[in-house]
Amino acid sequence: MYLESIDGPQDLLALDSRQRIALAEEIRAALLHKLSLRGGHVGSNLGFVEATIALHYVFHDPDDKIVFDVSHQSYTHKMLTGRRDAFLDESRFDDVSGFSEPSESDYDLFRMGHTSTSVSLASGLAKARDMAGRGGNVVAVIGDGSLSGGEALEGLDFVGGELNGNMIIVVNDNGMSIAENHGGLYRSLAHLRESGGTSPDNIFTALGLDYRYEPRGNDIDALIRIFEQVRDTDHPVVVHIRTRKGLGYTPAERNKEAWHWHAPFDEATGVSLAPPRRTYLTEAGDHVLDLMAADPEVTAIIAGTPTVFDLTPERRARAGRQLIDVGIAEEQAVAMASGMARGGGKPIVGMYASFLQRTYDQMMDDVCINSSPATFCIGNASIWGVNDVTHLGLFDIAMIGNIPGLVYLAPTNVEEMNAMMDWAVRQTQHPVAIRMPAGTVRHADDAHPVRRDYSRLDTFDTLHRGSRVAIIAAGDFLRLGEDTARLLHDEEGIDATVVNPQFISGVDAATLDSLLDDHTVVVTLEDGMLSGGFGAKVAAHYAPTPMRVLCYGFAKTYYDRYDPAEVMHDNRLEPGAIRDDVLHTLADGVEFPQRPVARGGAFPRDTAA
Amino acid sequence: MYLESIDGPQDLLALDSRQRIALAEEIRAALLHKLSLRGGHVGSNLGFVEATIALHYVFHDPDDKIVFDVSHQSYTHKMLTGRRDAFLDESRFDDVSGFSEPSESDYDLFRMGHTSTSVSLASGLAKARDMAGRGGNVVAVIGDGSLSGGEALEGLDFVGGELNGNMIIVVNDNGMSIAENHGGLYRSLAHLRESGGTSPDNIFTALGLDYRYEPRGNDIDALIRIFEQVRDTDHPVVVHIRTRKGLGYTPAERNKEAWHWHAPFDEATGVSLAPPRRTYLTEAGDHVLDLMAADPEVTAIIAGTPTVFDLTPERRARAGRQLIDVGIAEEQAVAMASGMARGGGKPIVGMYASFLQRTYDQMMDDVCINSSPATFCIGNASIWGVNDVTHLGLFDIAMIGNIPGLVYLAPTNVEEMNAMMDWAVRQTQHPVAIRMPAGTVRHADDAHPVRRDYSRLDTFDTLHRGSRVAIIAAGDFLRLGEDTARLLHDEEGIDATVVNPQFISGVDAATLDSLLDDHTVVVTLEDGMLSGGFGAKVAAHYAPTPMRVLCYGFAKTYYDRYDPAEVMHDNRLEPGAIRDDVLHTLADGVEFPQRPVARGGAFPRDTAA
Repeated sequence: MYLESIDGPQDLLALDSRQRIALAEEIRAALLHKLSLRGGHVGSNLGFVEATIALHYVFHDPDDKIVFDVSHQSYTHKMLTGRRDAFLDESRFDDVSGFSEPSESDYDLFRMGHTSTSVSLASGLAKARDMAGRGGNVVAVIGDGSLSGGEALEGLDFVGGELNGNMIIVVNDNGMSIAENHGGLYRSLAHLRESGGTSPDNIFTALGLDYRYEPRGNDIDALIRIFEQVRDTDHPVVVHIRTRKGLGYTPAERNKEAWHWHAPFDEATGVSLAPPRRTYLTEAGDHVLDLMAADPEVTAIIAGTPTVFDLTPERRARAGRQLIDVGIAEEQAVAMASGMARGGGKPIVGMYASFLQRTYDQMMDDVCINSSPATFCIGNASIWGVNDVTHLGLFDIAMIGNIPGLVYLAPTNVEEMNAMMDWAVRQTQHPVAIRMPAGTVRHADDAHPVRRDYSRLDTFDTLHRGSRVAIIAAGDFLRLGEDTARLLHDEEGIDATVVNPQFISGVDAATLDSLLDDHTVVVTLEDGMLSGGFGAKVAAHYAPTPMRVLCYGFAKTYYDRYDPAEVMHDNRLEPGAIRDDVLHTLADGVEFPQRPVARGGAFPRDTAA
Repeated sequence: MYLESIDGPQDLLALDSRQRIALAEEIRAALLHKLSLRGGHVGSNLGFVEATIALHYVFHDPDDKIVFDVSHQSYTHKMLTGRRDAFLDESRFDDVSGFSEPSESDYDLFRMGHTSTSVSLASGLAKARDMAGRGGNVVAVIGDGSLSGGEALEGLDFVGGELNGNMIIVVNDNGMSIAENHGGLYRSLAHLRESGGTSPDNIFTALGLDYRYEPRGNDIDALIRIFEQVRDTDHPVVVHIRTRKGLGYTPAERNKEAWHWHAPFDEATGVSLAPPRRTYLTEAGDHVLDLMAADPEVTAIIAGTPTVFDLTPERRARAGRQLIDVGIAEEQAVAMASGMARGGGKPIVGMYASFLQRTYDQMMDDVCINSSPATFCIGNASIWGVNDVTHLGLFDIAMIGNIPGLVYLAPTNVEEMNAMMDWAVRQTQHPVAIRMPAGTVRHADDAHPVRRDYSRLDTFDTLHRGSRVAIIAAGDFLRLGEDTARLLHDEEGIDATVVNPQFISGVDAATLDSLLDDHTVVVTLEDGMLSGGFGAKVAAHYAPTPMRVLCYGFAKTYYDRYDPAEVMHDNRLEPGAIRDDVLHTLADGVEFPQRPVARGGAFPRDTAA
């Protein structure tokens, strides 16, 4: 087996053409075997095996640097850079992450997982090289699907006009994003493929870049030839290569979208081994489809991730022209939603929390400063979301919950989520974001009534009024709050107040102040980072008073490939731990009634503003 | 005077060609007179007078919609849409803002002031129109300088590929950004101008857009002809017009950069009437130039705003290749800085707080997740920054102060700012942002010693240790804190502790806990929004304890064209008001010593993370 002889890229030089082809097949087989057992990014890795071999054959670290965009296509790169056992030995599968990871290898230059960043990051490596007077090639790999992102386009424009020195941009064109591509540049890319790179409408030359085209993107020898032609170039050059997503595995070649990322599967048949399960994303998608069917002006907007509303091709067909996929262009999605709302439309944007990060300025300046009544449904905003460091969904409350004018709602069950969506689309006063819950899908019941109208902003629902201790539990952590209240009641005889805040971008001053009369401790629970979050607003409201506030959520840090249960435990997000902290604080308690004091510039004035 | 006969765009139809030219000269004279008295955007408005007349002659609100990018070039538009008196009658100059403002007129569709947004916002208006089955033209005006922004490029790609219906994009090409343009697409634009629009490298057609070129961008009749050709188009089309920035005012034509925005000036000579004053931005620029002179690997990065370091053309020449202006491309600036830092370089990014908003994702994913030791100097982050709603500098602490891994420093004088910059560039562990102070430039003295090493993160400096009351005053509000302490001492006999936190992205748990022994009230002061800010972290730290915390800063709202003194007063940011709140809180005080309690999942654990 040739793969076992590859301890590093230099070992590729010992292989001849025939042996390199055999190596590619070994790598493909290893990829498929691990992917079938663990799941992961299938199509993008299968299509980039040959190009990765050719890149490491021609460009040699440490002098040469290769940056993989998104880096979910870098599995072959990992196999060729000393990490093959993590793909061959099942007991070592977990040694490597699914993305580029500097702590694994010096061949991985950045922790990355968002699209459209490789050109900008690589331009920095090239500039640092030039400022220090060093040599070497800097190579940025970027997929066609990532080209529509603003950061990539800014990077290409900068490199084309300002870089001057050596840089090679490999455009891995498999004609696909996660789903089909969207945007005018994809017509130009198609024309470039059809014309063998000679079509006049060329986004790369229009941005000042030198350009080469290689249609045989899965032919190692052809790729080695073209990479050798551009090696040590004294100016930036784009090498546009045509690859086949999913190459070598029929199911993945036949259904590229379903196999972009895939759960564990039976390798022989391609049948998924993961039982399909209904999530809040499916429920939200169902409701969005119902809203669109009832009103032709309701429009769903997504940015290259149909899964955020579980929009399979069939469901996208049902939505028809009422669904707009802008492709990987989150800024456009959010700004266009503001324009539609100001134009009398009813846009509902579906976006994962991790990618919402790209739109802070659009959320504030395009949407909120204009009070555009657009609706945003935020997905995977939870410790139970994606657990890779670049895809965490724990920062959204701190990010948009502090943007003036935005109403951020945290539903606790399906019916509440849908009622919030109905209100958000109906009203015309506020931009509204809805934090789609994670975990087990729950439903409303007598103990959890659903409000229809949310126009009285920042009004919390008190589900049970007790005394001494109040638990304010947001979104999918309401259940944890109720379990804690039960424990306090059953074991300590404490009749705790339980509040479903619903609003997480502000506080209910009347409800909070009323607790000062007969409560000593207020507990807040949120499925997100504490710093800048919801509990911080409650703590700040009580800051000038004697109320003791215990805020529970996640530390201000980056978790990576974590076990949610462990992280919950480490942050004392368990009824027992919270009970202990509450008892400890009560022992230190104060007299009733507590008197609220003049607050001056303190927080409560914000909620009125 | 024709201008006095224009109550709305429809009145333009009564004017013949000669009269329209006379009107343009009247408008230009009015612009110059008001600008000379009040200051404002000179060059961009003088160059777009004719195009604005032609647009309103051809396209008629309310059926047709015109969106001006940035909208600092919309003064003529305001004069033609019922607001001429705000330019002719000095007593009414303040009736209009310097940007598009819906509260002034239905002809202004969005509050906007950031670049590169008009195409995306207009695409939403067009989509809403199409979903509702309405007609009418949607026109987006965008300057060449704004084309390099990610949002604009995402918008052009979307419109070129996905919009299908009517939309007209007027590219106002005056060959300039605020300063010179940067990026490859500007070579293509120059070739298009030189070739009369026939050059093959065409960014617009490469993005799937139909394209027209009109070199006579200051010829009303020529513009009317080409706008009439594209009116009611059934698909998106770009009309690329060549205009002359500053046209009609010699000083502005001669020095386009100095006259992009200008303070009040003598109309006859063009001599500025505003005395030049040294600001913290000038001081920071001086220090950056010194650092670059001392170390060839130190590189300053700006994104189209040389003023952030007061980099006049002369100072830019001094910096030479150690200064990189990426043009309007904030995402590229920040991501490239991360790449440079990871590549061993020493990048110092200068950016205004308002535009930093475009880089939340790059700050987190490209920079902080990679612990890239890049330095960021943040400008106009203060109530004394720009007071237009779209340029507020009050949100940066909430935005980046909650991003894990970022060290955010708030210097209180020039020497402290420079020492922080020295340390940030020297160290290799952390991304560091420095909040350049605003207001009167202050210097270190015996009472305000400067630390050289900031590697012990989140350690506050106690300038004076008193008892009962502690005042933690960040950045340029330290002086307010000292004045308040003096008042408490002189009038109330209270010996207040005064702390310069220096770090605003975390808290000094040891210092805060030590105050529990003999302090009842802690006051926090910050020159930014309270929600999600620095005081909130202090309040959250004390939340489980009896400490009373009063947080002072600004409400969670959008101020517009405000008087800083008034806003300070409204937020009780005055020694007398703070003194009153402190006395009121003390009257409600508790016993000593206060005992810290087990904090469970509460905030202090974050600072350890």
